[in-house]
Amino acid sequence: MAVLRPASTEEVSEAVKICAEHGVAIVPQGGNTNVCGMTLASRDAVILNLSRMNQIIEVDREGGTITVEAGATMQAVQEAATEAGLLFAPDWGARGSAQVGGAVATNGGGLNVIGYGTTREQVMGLEAVLADGRIWNGMRHHIKDNSGYDLKQLLIGSEGTLGIITRLVFRLHPAPSHRISMMAVLTSTDRLMDALALARQTAGDQLVAFELMNGLGVELALERYPDLKRPFETRADWYVLIQLAGGPTVTEAMEQIFSDGFEQEIFSDGVLANSIAQERNLWEIREQLIPIQYFDCPFAKWDVSVPVSRIMEYLHRARDIASDVDPELVCYAVGHVGDGNIHYNIFLQGRSEAEAERIIPELIRRIDDLIAEMGGSITAEHGVGTAYIERVRRLKSGVEYELMLKLRELFDPNGILNPGKLLPRKG
Amino acid sequence: MAVLRPASTEEVSEAVKICAEHGVAIVPQGGNTNVCGMTLASRDAVILNLSRMNQIIEVDREGGTITVEAGATMQAVQEAATEAGLLFAPDWGARGSAQVGGAVATNGGGLNVIGYGTTREQVMGLEAVLADGRIWNGMRHHIKDNSGYDLKQLLIGSEGTLGIITRLVFRLHPAPSHRISMMAVLTSTDRLMDALALARQTAGDQLVAFELMNGLGVELALERYPDLKRPFETRADWYVLIQLAGGPTVTEAMEQIFSDGFEQEIFSDGVLANSIAQERNLWEIREQLIPIQYFDCPFAKWDVSVPVSRIMEYLHRARDIASDVDPELVCYAVGHVGDGNIHYNIFLQGRSEAEAERIIPELIRRIDDLIAEMGGSITAEHGVGTAYIERVRRLKSGVEYELMLKLRELFDPNGILNPGKLLPRKG
Ligand SMILES: Cc1cc2nc3c(=O)[nH]c(=O)nc-3n(C[C@H](O)[C@H](O)[C@H](O)COP(=O)(O)OP(=O)(O)OC[C@H]3O[C@@H](n4cnc5c(N)ncnc54)[C@H](O)[C@@H]3O)c2cc1C
Ligand SMILES: Cc1cc2nc3c(=O)[nH]c(=O)nc-3n(C[C@H](O)[C@H](O)[C@H](O)COP(=O)(O)OP(=O)(O)OC[C@H]3O[C@@H](n4cnc5c(N)ncnc54)[C@H](O)[C@@H]3O)c2cc1C
Repeated sequence: MAVLRPASTEEVSEAVKICAEHGVAIVPQGGNTNVCGMTLASRDAVILNLSRMNQIIEVDREGGTITVEAGATMQAVQEAATEAGLLFAPDWGARGSAQVGGAVATNGGGLNVIGYGTTREQVMGLEAVLADGRIWNGMRHHIKDNSGYDLKQLLIGSEGTLGIITRLVFRLHPAPSHRISMMAVLTSTDRLMDALALARQTAGDQLVAFELMNGLGVELALERYPDLKRPFETRADWYVLIQLAGGPTVTEAMEQIFSDGFEQEIFSDGVLANSIAQERNLWEIREQLIPIQYFDCPFAKWDVSVPVSRIMEYLHRARDIASDVDPELVCYAVGHVGDGNIHYNIFLQGRSEAEAERIIPELIRRIDDLIAEMGGSITAEHGVGTAYIERVRRLKSGVEYELMLKLRELFDPNGILNPGKLLPRKG
Repeated sequence: MAVLRPASTEEVSEAVKICAEHGVAIVPQGGNTNVCGMTLASRDAVILNLSRMNQIIEVDREGGTITVEAGATMQAVQEAATEAGLLFAPDWGARGSAQVGGAVATNGGGLNVIGYGTTREQVMGLEAVLADGRIWNGMRHHIKDNSGYDLKQLLIGSEGTLGIITRLVFRLHPAPSHRISMMAVLTSTDRLMDALALARQTAGDQLVAFELMNGLGVELALERYPDLKRPFETRADWYVLIQLAGGPTVTEAMEQIFSDGFEQEIFSDGVLANSIAQERNLWEIREQLIPIQYFDCPFAKWDVSVPVSRIMEYLHRARDIASDVDPELVCYAVGHVGDGNIHYNIFLQGRSEAEAERIIPELIRRIDDLIAEMGGSITAEHGVGTAYIERVRRLKSGVEYELMLKLRELFDPNGILNPGKLLPRKG
């Protein structure tokens, strides 16, 4: 119906009050980079876009915190932290457009969760406008507070359904003085856990990223983006991309991982990035592994989380299911395996729409069930939005779903905040 | 009225169903080590003690998780993790009696929050029995899950008022191969932040603990406990106790902190613990700084959290208020200053009960207001219980308090779970 672009918390509050009075639905919108249909707006809704609220309010170097408006981009916050000699941890491909409010509303994960945790762990305080337009000021700048239920935790990951986040306090980390990345060829996926164990054991807390890359994706990325450089000649089915950050010893530690991995036949080739440009190149290959750009056919998708120790089991069993359904399906896995998270797509190349309509529901049902049986999540970091809403409803226990519905009812009794996202529309 | 000692989740569920049916209040009880009157039971309530549910169910070494029943002690869980070559982070003086269920229900902080975060950050999944006796199974073994509101966050720190925690999944950390502690004399409290900055800068993520100790407390502890050894001859008003953990470089880093601190006149004396026994001695002195054992007089207390960068300001301003109220009051500060948390007591030595009745409310009101003005918390890690209930109510915003009341109403409409703790009794 309209796009509202408030410039302050008070304006957000005023806007929400007017909408509440007239029962108008509000779709909060950040950088609009989510991948689950979270900011779709029906005709009778208004979009409330936060991009004018993009101030960096304060960096507290001693205290290690940054205070910002929710509409600041992740990259702007990263840069402000770096300027102060500190590190704002959340980081993923959409950094230039995604807003920190959106990152918090989706509890984004990204590339360095094993090093620093998800966005949730970075939030120290927040301010939000509630469904009736009242402002809740939870702007805490201190680390510990056990003076009551931790309300901000509910807002984090609530996808705009419990309140509109207007300001945030994040914790910052000491900026590591040294960083090094390595891309290596896995001799087989069966060695993936050995590679992770080796990296963990050798680098301890300095291990900040551990990514799995599939060979098909790497070839597609190198083909599509001529600026990307092939890191080494070996072409393989699986690669890992490892990053260490910390003191000057990280180089030595990475060399150790490299040589031990060779000796133990975990890796068969690889490269240590010896310059910033080389490191950037490796990570750009990784970021270009998002597969939808390469396939023009129907597909099914999962943002799988399983216990880290069971990733291999998942990959094998999911592939078996896919083969069973249709031996020609293309399984595509890439992701943050260090924290148990794999973005998993199955592409139906050469299959008609009619075939897809039969195949996709079966794939989804069977692989969703597999993930549930393994005690995992079908949407680890991307959230629910509209994309996973029915699938999540089918898998959640009745008790848990009922509590979620009641919580939304408590925060938004008239159902005006982002209706039909995360949970079905009221009524 | 009775003490119930269930041996399984099902027995907890049965017990709660019976209590719910008869409107009987339930006080969940772990190790009973809390310091805020959280497990006080009125005559018409039953105590539900978790100590028979103390199984270590599983350690997943590859996945870095441990699954336990809520009644296991912190120490038992620490030991099971250590045996698997991993680290269960929560740690504080009560480790031998406090249960992990109690640690989660109070979101305990403790000695190494700057290294690993609070208990909250360690919880990956939990199971709880709700107020109607239904079991909510939130036993997730995977790190990331954005499939809905994160309900476990509400149970964490809820002091037994939203559900009874029966089982838990915790994340474990790589066990550091090396650890070293140092106790040093601060030349003045004004250099406290310089000391912290120096430690942070030199040791980065390897800094796991940074404690402030007051001279009076150290003398009292050494006097009372003859097994404790005086670490060095200098007697001073303020000491810091620093711990690094990580690879073999921690010793070098600590020596650097020591010598740079000397050179920059931040420290005037100090000792690096060169053996396990020496290290244990320093930490036992620290743990014996709990002041109530040394003073037999009325007192007021705070578990202060302020932005880390404002700790000194807090210490000065609180002392000024105390002097203004009565120049002879004894201010006693000890705590986890690295994360902005100070346990603060003011003792009314030599004052009569009548004087105390006048002085204490004034101290509490003025220092609570100071903390609120500084944007801090009066109960950083100890929780609310009965001890802080009215003081928290006075300081919280109306919006926040209302949401807290509504959340409790949602989880426990009949008010049978630990009534009168954290929030006032219903009605
Ligand atoms: C190239 C690319 C790479 C990505 N990589 C990752 C990754 O590695 N890990 C990962 O977790 N995600 C990843 N994402 C998706 C990620 O969820 C989004 O990038 C980001 O978290 C959303 O931020 P946004 O500002 O774009 O929010 P939007 O897309 O605008 O909104 C997302 C949701 O948050 C709500 N919302 C937005 N702002 C607010 C606010 N201020 N208050 C309340 N609700 C609000 C919206 O209503 C919506 O429900 C990627 C996306 C892209 C395009
Ligand atoms: C010497 C000493 C040092 C301490 N140091 C610290 C410190 O450094 N940092 C810190 O944070 N705390 C510290 N504490 C206090 C700390 O809060 C407790 O030690 C611990 O968290 C409580 O665990 P417990 O099992 O004893 O719980 P209890 O005291 O039995 O109960 C505490 C609360 O949790 C609830 N509860 C207990 N178990 C469950 C359950 N299974 N499900 C639901 N609710 C439950 C109870 O109803 C009560 O409200 C210290 C205490 C002592 C005695």
